[in-house]
Amino acid sequence: MGNCLVAQSGGPTTVINASLAGVVRANQLNPVYDHVYGGLNGIEGILQDHLYDLTNMSEYENRILRQTPSSALGSCRYKLKRNDETDYLKLVEIMEKHDIDVMFYIGGNDSMDTVDALSQWAKKKGIKQRFVGIPKTVDNDLMVIDHCPGFASGAKFANEVVNATWLDYNVYTREEVFVLETMGRDAGWLAGSTVVTGKVDLLVLPEVDFDKDVFLAEVKKCMDKKGKCYIVTSEGAHYADGTYVAAGQAKNDGFGHAILGGAGQALKQMIVDAGIAPRGKVQDLSSAARSSNFAQSLVDVTEAYELGMSAHGRSANPEFTGMVVAHQREYIDGRYNAHFIAGPAEKFANYVKHVPTEWILPNYQGMTKEFYDYITPLIQGEPDLIYNEKGIPETIVPFNMR
Amino acid sequence: MGNCLVAQSGGPTTVINASLAGVVRANQLNPVYDHVYGGLNGIEGILQDHLYDLTNMSEYENRILRQTPSSALGSCRYKLKRNDETDYLKLVEIMEKHDIDVMFYIGGNDSMDTVDALSQWAKKKGIKQRFVGIPKTVDNDLMVIDHCPGFASGAKFANEVVNATWLDYNVYTREEVFVLETMGRDAGWLAGSTVVTGKVDLLVLPEVDFDKDVFLAEVKKCMDKKGKCYIVTSEGAHYADGTYVAAGQAKNDGFGHAILGGAGQALKQMIVDAGIAPRGKVQDLSSAARSSNFAQSLVDVTEAYELGMSAHGRSANPEFTGMVVAHQREYIDGRYNAHFIAGPAEKFANYVKHVPTEWILPNYQGMTKEFYDYITPLIQGEPDLIYNEKGIPETIVPFNMR
Repeated sequence: MGNCLVAQSGGPTTVINASLAGVVRANQLNPVYDHVYGGLNGIEGILQDHLYDLTNMSEYENRILRQTPSSALGSCRYKLKRNDETDYLKLVEIMEKHDIDVMFYIGGNDSMDTVDALSQWAKKKGIKQRFVGIPKTVDNDLMVIDHCPGFASGAKFANEVVNATWLDYNVYTREEVFVLETMGRDAGWLAGSTVVTGKVDLLVLPEVDFDKDVFLAEVKKCMDKKGKCYIVTSEGAHYADGTYVAAGQAKNDGFGHAILGGAGQALKQMIVDAGIAPRGKVQDLSSAARSSNFAQSLVDVTEAYELGMSAHGRSANPEFTGMVVAHQREYIDGRYNAHFIAGPAEKFANYVKHVPTEWILPNYQGMTKEFYDYITPLIQGEPDLIYNEKGIPETIVPFNMR
Repeated sequence: MGNCLVAQSGGPTTVINASLAGVVRANQLNPVYDHVYGGLNGIEGILQDHLYDLTNMSEYENRILRQTPSSALGSCRYKLKRNDETDYLKLVEIMEKHDIDVMFYIGGNDSMDTVDALSQWAKKKGIKQRFVGIPKTVDNDLMVIDHCPGFASGAKFANEVVNATWLDYNVYTREEVFVLETMGRDAGWLAGSTVVTGKVDLLVLPEVDFDKDVFLAEVKKCMDKKGKCYIVTSEGAHYADGTYVAAGQAKNDGFGHAILGGAGQALKQMIVDAGIAPRGKVQDLSSAARSSNFAQSLVDVTEAYELGMSAHGRSANPEFTGMVVAHQREYIDGRYNAHFIAGPAEKFANYVKHVPTEWILPNYQGMTKEFYDYITPLIQGEPDLIYNEKGIPETIVPFNMR
């Protein structure tokens, strides 16, 4: 038997390690591979032969791994060039050296594109190594899959923070707006999810071009009514011409994606400058939302774990390459159920799944019932966390830091 | 039997409602008062006769109240003037109207000062109404009491966020600093508490005058060693001349206290401008830390509840006025134990309990063992929260919003 390699890429999530744990555990239950190697810091580290043997991880460490947020193998934002074989050849050389047949890549859009590119290239060249994708992204913007692992826990965290900050905000009688900013890039899933609390007065999503006049009129209406206005905005909110509401602070990351942040501050300033509220508070969830283990959704962490197991099991088929595992939603006896499938990586990669505009109410008023029905089953349940002697949830030492 | 009144003031905490719940429950177990009234929005609302009858709250609602962060009665920052009787007389008039003998005021330094002022005045005037303080503050800056209810849960939340964001921060190999900013005004307890994680490279507290050169030298040393530097700063960090590190953004609240925030951003910019790191990330915990119910410490929420019960019970003594309930630390069989006491409000009010400077290591290197021993017992245990059908912890509808 040969070996397999599993790596993580892109921004971390709260449950990306559960998918890693699923691959490792599945191979202990059904040893398809002699060794399960972890690739450290994604493709970037693998190309430097930075591997870590995960084969014999104890069940206890596996449990702790599942409740550890962020990426335990480390991550990267290094993207393989499609028109340059150098990295491809180097990768296969490393895989050959360690007798690795299959590489599992846990990541978002770009990582699924990498899986697609590598498998296409390998097939064309008659190279035996295979590449399998396991999806994750807190932004929930991948196609094919019903929802992305990591999103629901991010949404649960955002909901808890909205609930808490809304209470905090309402203890004083003073006139004031509150703006909470969430991640989500160009998809409004995460920001939208906060309507579940029932506490959001106005919701600004990237799916609808931002109209300053309409927005300020709604803020005014709300302030006139109750002297308070709790606003949630996605970091990716933008005007019709594409300019981000946070403009001025936007830069690019290595992938040509804008690094966002500041939409909340911008909205607050806009409201204060317009004289609609004398003051405002801003809370930017930033990366705390995607890497918090005190708001894991049990549904999310379980599905992420099972996607890892599903990828491992399906990969025993020697034809299985360039594929991504996923789940689709079904209802059995009226109850939400995840049905596991697999599909070609190209269908996942490089598209952005937006919130359907028909689920978005006009004038920043929130979401329709369809959206609530979509999100609610995903944020149910809480895992029974193991706490350390310091009184905080136990986490493993990241493999890339050992 | 007469009635009693309980109100909350100042910034909310995660467990301030547990103290309220303690007063209400204690009166059901031992009905010293016919009615327990809640005063809405502190003194400000009480002066407008905004009361809510809490006497017959169900045990279930009491449980939910205990796990609801923020101030369920609403709060205020209205301070009674010591040299003007108008408000005092109005307050007594309202109390007379509702046959209220005793007012419990849950709050921080300013509220304890209010308890002191009212009781002194009433004694002098031969007025029978009595005033009792129940302390809280996330800043942990009250004298007499070993630690303030609300602080430990804020510290637990901060620790969990440090743990999570530290993992998130370390997934990439890129050179970068991370700065987490906590609340804490002029006391570094909350910022200091994050050392429990073992993840903090440099710690900036208000107890030590900020020295830019020394600080930057330490950041450089850390960056040179590992290309990363995880920094925690208190919002109240300041230079030797008193200027806040966050200067430029400081305003005043109604009490003449500076409204802080921005120290994290300022430190990051300082580091980037000095060319020590090419980039940095900032996370401002802001009010999320003080009002989050997913990081309640079981020790904290229990003690807050019991302080409410203690205040209720002691108030049956007709001499008990101008007093504040508190606990002091003892160890029984080597185990932490809270010993309940009561002391004059004047000893609590208008002083700031700083972190002892002998517990602070030089050059921003963190804290001594004494500090760990102080903080660790306080953040132990997690209450078994009741979740609602949306998958988030259940909270009550604030009384000031009913």
